[in-house]
Amino acid sequence: MPTKPSKELKTFPNPHPNRDYVIEHVCPEYTAVCPMTGQPDFGTIRIRYVPDERCVELLSLKLYIWSFRDEGHFFEDVTNVILNDLVAALDPRTITVTGEFNVRGGITSTVTATHSKG
Amino acid sequence: MPTKPSKELKTFPNPHPNRDYVIEHVCPEYTAVCPMTGQPDFGTIRIRYVPDERCVELLSLKLYIWSFRDEGHFFEDVTNVILNDLVAALDPRTITVTGEFNVRGGITSTVTATHSKG
Amino acid sequence: MPTKPSKELKTFPNPHPNRDYVIEHVCPEYTAVCPMTGQPDFGTIRIRYVPDERCVELLSLKLYIWSFRDEGHFFEDVTNVILNDLVAALDPRTITVTGEFNVRGGITSTVTATHSKG
Amino acid sequence: MPTKPSKELKTFPNPHPNRDYVIEHVCPEYTAVCPMTGQPDFGTIRIRYVPDERCVELLSLKLYIWSFRDEGHFFEDVTNVILNDLVAALDPRTITVTGEFNVRGGITSTVTATHSKG
Amino acid sequence: MPTKPSKELKTFPNPHPNRDYVIEHVCPEYTAVCPMTGQPDFGTIRIRYVPDERCVELLSLKLYIWSFRDEGHFFEDVTNVILNDLVAALDPRTITVTGEFNVRGGITSTVTATHSKG
Amino acid sequence: MPTKPSKELKTFPNPHPNRDYVIEHVCPEYTAVCPMTGQPDFGTIRIRYVPDERCVELLSLKLYIWSFRDEGHFFEDVTNVILNDLVAALDPRTITVTGEFNVRGGITSTVTATHSKG
Amino acid sequence: MPTKPSKELKTFPNPHPNRDYVIEHVCPEYTAVCPMTGQPDFGTIRIRYVPDERCVELLSLKLYIWSFRDEGHFFEDVTNVILNDLVAALDPRTITVTGEFNVRGGITSTVTATHSKG
Amino acid sequence: MPTKPSKELKTFPNPHPNRDYVIEHVCPEYTAVCPMTGQPDFGTIRIRYVPDERCVELLSLKLYIWSFRDEGHFFEDVTNVILNDLVAALDPRTITVTGEFNVRGGITSTVTATHSKG
Amino acid sequence: MPTKPSKELKTFPNPHPNRDYVIEHVCPEYTAVCPMTGQPDFGTIRIRYVPDERCVELLSLKLYIWSFRDEGHFFEDVTNVILNDLVAALDPRTITVTGEFNVRGGITSTVTATHSKG
Amino acid sequence: MPTKPSKELKTFPNPHPNRDYVIEHVCPEYTAVCPMTGQPDFGTIRIRYVPDERCVELLSLKLYIWSFRDEGHFFEDVTNVILNDLVAALDPRTITVTGEFNVRGGITSTVTATHSKG
Repeated sequence: MPTKPSKELKTFPNPHPNRDYVIEHVCPEYTAVCPMTGQPDFGTIRIRYVPDERCVELLSLKLYIWSFRDEGHFFEDVTNVILNDLVAALDPRTITVTGEFNVRGGITSTVTATHSKG
Repeated sequence: MPTKPSKELKTFPNPHPNRDYVIEHVCPEYTAVCPMTGQPDFGTIRIRYVPDERCVELLSLKLYIWSFRDEGHFFEDVTNVILNDLVAALDPRTITVTGEFNVRGGITSTVTATHSKG
Repeated sequence: MPTKPSKELKTFPNPHPNRDYVIEHVCPEYTAVCPMTGQPDFGTIRIRYVPDERCVELLSLKLYIWSFRDEGHFFEDVTNVILNDLVAALDPRTITVTGEFNVRGGITSTVTATHSKG
Repeated sequence: MPTKPSKELKTFPNPHPNRDYVIEHVCPEYTAVCPMTGQPDFGTIRIRYVPDERCVELLSLKLYIWSFRDEGHFFEDVTNVILNDLVAALDPRTITVTGEFNVRGGITSTVTATHSKG
Repeated sequence: MPTKPSKELKTFPNPHPNRDYVIEHVCPEYTAVCPMTGQPDFGTIRIRYVPDERCVELLSLKLYIWSFRDEGHFFEDVTNVILNDLVAALDPRTITVTGEFNVRGGITSTVTATHSKG
Repeated sequence: MPTKPSKELKTFPNPHPNRDYVIEHVCPEYTAVCPMTGQPDFGTIRIRYVPDERCVELLSLKLYIWSFRDEGHFFEDVTNVILNDLVAALDPRTITVTGEFNVRGGITSTVTATHSKG
Repeated sequence: MPTKPSKELKTFPNPHPNRDYVIEHVCPEYTAVCPMTGQPDFGTIRIRYVPDERCVELLSLKLYIWSFRDEGHFFEDVTNVILNDLVAALDPRTITVTGEFNVRGGITSTVTATHSKG
Repeated sequence: MPTKPSKELKTFPNPHPNRDYVIEHVCPEYTAVCPMTGQPDFGTIRIRYVPDERCVELLSLKLYIWSFRDEGHFFEDVTNVILNDLVAALDPRTITVTGEFNVRGGITSTVTATHSKG
Repeated sequence: MPTKPSKELKTFPNPHPNRDYVIEHVCPEYTAVCPMTGQPDFGTIRIRYVPDERCVELLSLKLYIWSFRDEGHFFEDVTNVILNDLVAALDPRTITVTGEFNVRGGITSTVTATHSKG
Repeated sequence: MPTKPSKELKTFPNPHPNRDYVIEHVCPEYTAVCPMTGQPDFGTIRIRYVPDERCVELLSLKLYIWSFRDEGHFFEDVTNVILNDLVAALDPRTITVTGEFNVRGGITSTVTATHSKG
């Protein structure tokens, strides 16, 4: 099972497309580097969506989260970037992405972004 | 009390059919095998419904949950399959099934599906 | 203070009948016997109501919960029976009774029933 | 700082009267005596209000809670009495008082009362 | 990195202004002095906002929280002052500030204020 | 599987008698009646022992705990009675029984008794 | 059941005097007044002892804890006083009394005293 | 990465054999069947050992725990069997295995066995 | 009650000097400034001692903890300084001081120092 | 404040070398890559030591933990490597390092190693 970090989000057909239902993935192993200081940041990414025709494949989601490891990202931006990437791959009925980031300067930060199909 | 895994969901008459009320069963001993890797998955199945004419019998629910033990199931699919089986057996006024699955690849997954009587 | 289990729910006049307010009692010492197996069941009964003209007296509520000790009851039924008895004694504006029952066959069960004055 | 129990609730002018905002005080050191048995009762009083022109002064609130120490009160009544006293002193836009009382006879009780300015 | 307490809240452009999303910062290291007794108070400040064109920069937020260290503030007032300062700096679509203050006289206090763009 | 409350503690041969090892059973569904007031008491019985030649069979332990349901027992006595009965049935190398009893009169009680083979 | 606060600690014969075993009572409803400020203090008293010939009767223990309600006591002293009174009444093999007192001036205090039979 | 349940515990050389240090693995996904009733049991296996020349390889440990899935085992026996298998594979300086098993008949069970090199 | 930060630790005579007993004070409102960066640090100071002839007075302890607010201190040093000051004031039989400091650079630190009378 | 990952552990003189006292640092932001699969591992490193002449400087400890980010390490090895590096830098009287690693294959692992000055 050769695996490398990858931005490609693989999908599979929604097995129950006639029903609105909710899938939630919690990824506590997010890490990236701060674009200002170059120091590592850590956090948990929560993804909650109602699939339309496609579901995200779990292994590719792991590799996708892994792909941020050597990149520089602000908290506010990366949460929206993950949301945009998932919307592009899944075109879900609705989706919410929450980034919960570790304490920096005595302050913890959480960013929550939502997209709904027009 | 001979008991074997069984797909048959036994029911009994709702003792208070004139009132809408909520029954919740939490089954933390769900296990099946991953259809891709053949490895065991573990999870908790939560069932929450408003009965119409029938309630699910607790012993048969245990055997039903047990029946997945040697089967291959994706998280997204099995939650909907359990919902469908309960709808077929109970025809409830409303029902929600939630599958909370153990961490795989550093990611935990939860799937929630709902059915309401037309 | 001679006390015995009793089905009689004593009441006292609501001291503030001009205001809608909420009274909640949590009774973690419910026990009865399973009507199918004869084995003891255990649970917590939560009662939450808006009184109209009467409030339930706490000592009589203790004796009432105690009165189920030697009786056979299904979870779904007993929660509704307690609701009906409280409605008969108090005629409250609204009331919700929740029975949270200990694990049986690896499954925990919760039943919630509500009544509102017509 | 000579302090005695006192029913007088002192107030100060709301420093931001042009905005609706919420003030919550949690007082875990309420005690009174049961009017039926004379035995001490214990509880936590939660006060949550939107001030209009006046805010309650914290030291006087402490002395007010203290003033119940030697008085006899039923749970249902005292929660409403505290609400009435605060309404008289503050004339708030809205206010909710919750009394959470320690277990008696194996049962814990919570009473919640709300007032809104007409 | 020379840093001093400062009332200046620095901001950066919202990287995703076309989407309503929520940013939350939790600052558990708030301290000031009581204007009546001169004694130190401690608390946690929670900030939750939907940015419009600007986001608050995390380091400046730390220095801003630090700036209250030698000042005298009432709980009710300081929560609104922080809200006002953030509104002036960010002009956010909506924002809520909550101050959770340590127990004083056996009582804990929480103040919550909200602003929405007209 | 007809089952009734029973004082008979069934045992089976220790499968590894050459090794000292520890078996712990936690029984949260103990109930009896107070010999002074006749009112029901509730508690959790913890049993922790190093077997010698016999282990206690789990089903019989359940029926044994059940057998106290209609009996009158003081907390201090019943914990020692359970210890004595287990010593008589198992003759273990060492055994500790702990009874943790629900709050009565605002006080919770725990009794712990230990026996070691001479 | 007329009950009043009382310093008299009633006892009953230890039902198992041939065995060293441990009895623990946890009393979260201790209150007294501060001898310096006259303000009420609150705390939890934990009592843990190995009985010799006498055990403390639970109802009298409740009335004993109640007897401090109107008395002035320092934390360090009252914990030792309770220990001394229990030693006088029970003459136990060993006993430990712990007083856990509510926060005062931002500081919580715990006092632990032990006595062993000579 | 083809993986199947396997009794073979693979090992690798202890990278620091000159020092006594402790390795702990917690395996919450143990399941087997009850040899008396044929029904599935669930539990957590904790392994804590001081390695001598070999350490257990994590993937093989997962497959080993998996290998019990279709086997019948009593709680007391299986904990000792796992201990014996690990002793045979690793010959560790000391090792403790704890099996924590889910509630059956209202009772939870824990078995702890230890081995030390002669 | 005019109070100011003060290094003077006031004491009162140990009311039970003939018995070894333990007094613990937990002070969660410690703050000082980092001597390297000048930024505020926060922490909890735990003091646990067996008094000899003197006990520390609680109000003076509060003012003593407050006295560090504007001083620069390393974690390792300040914990020992507090220990030394308490030893000088109380000459206790034994004393342990623990400083638990908030996360800095993603790392939390705890320092524990003990003194026993020769 | 330019900071980069670095293996250099900076130290400062122990400010209280005449006393044995304990310093503990908890570093929850450890990450490295698995040398077998190349995938990221996450964990918490706990360091607890009695300093002799030197203490570890907190900023350099952060950079040291950060230095593992792009390296391949087995759990058992890296915990001992960190211990060895700290012993080389600090020559402490005693030191314990614990690595608590995130779940892999459904199993969590903890490694604890200790060194004492000869």
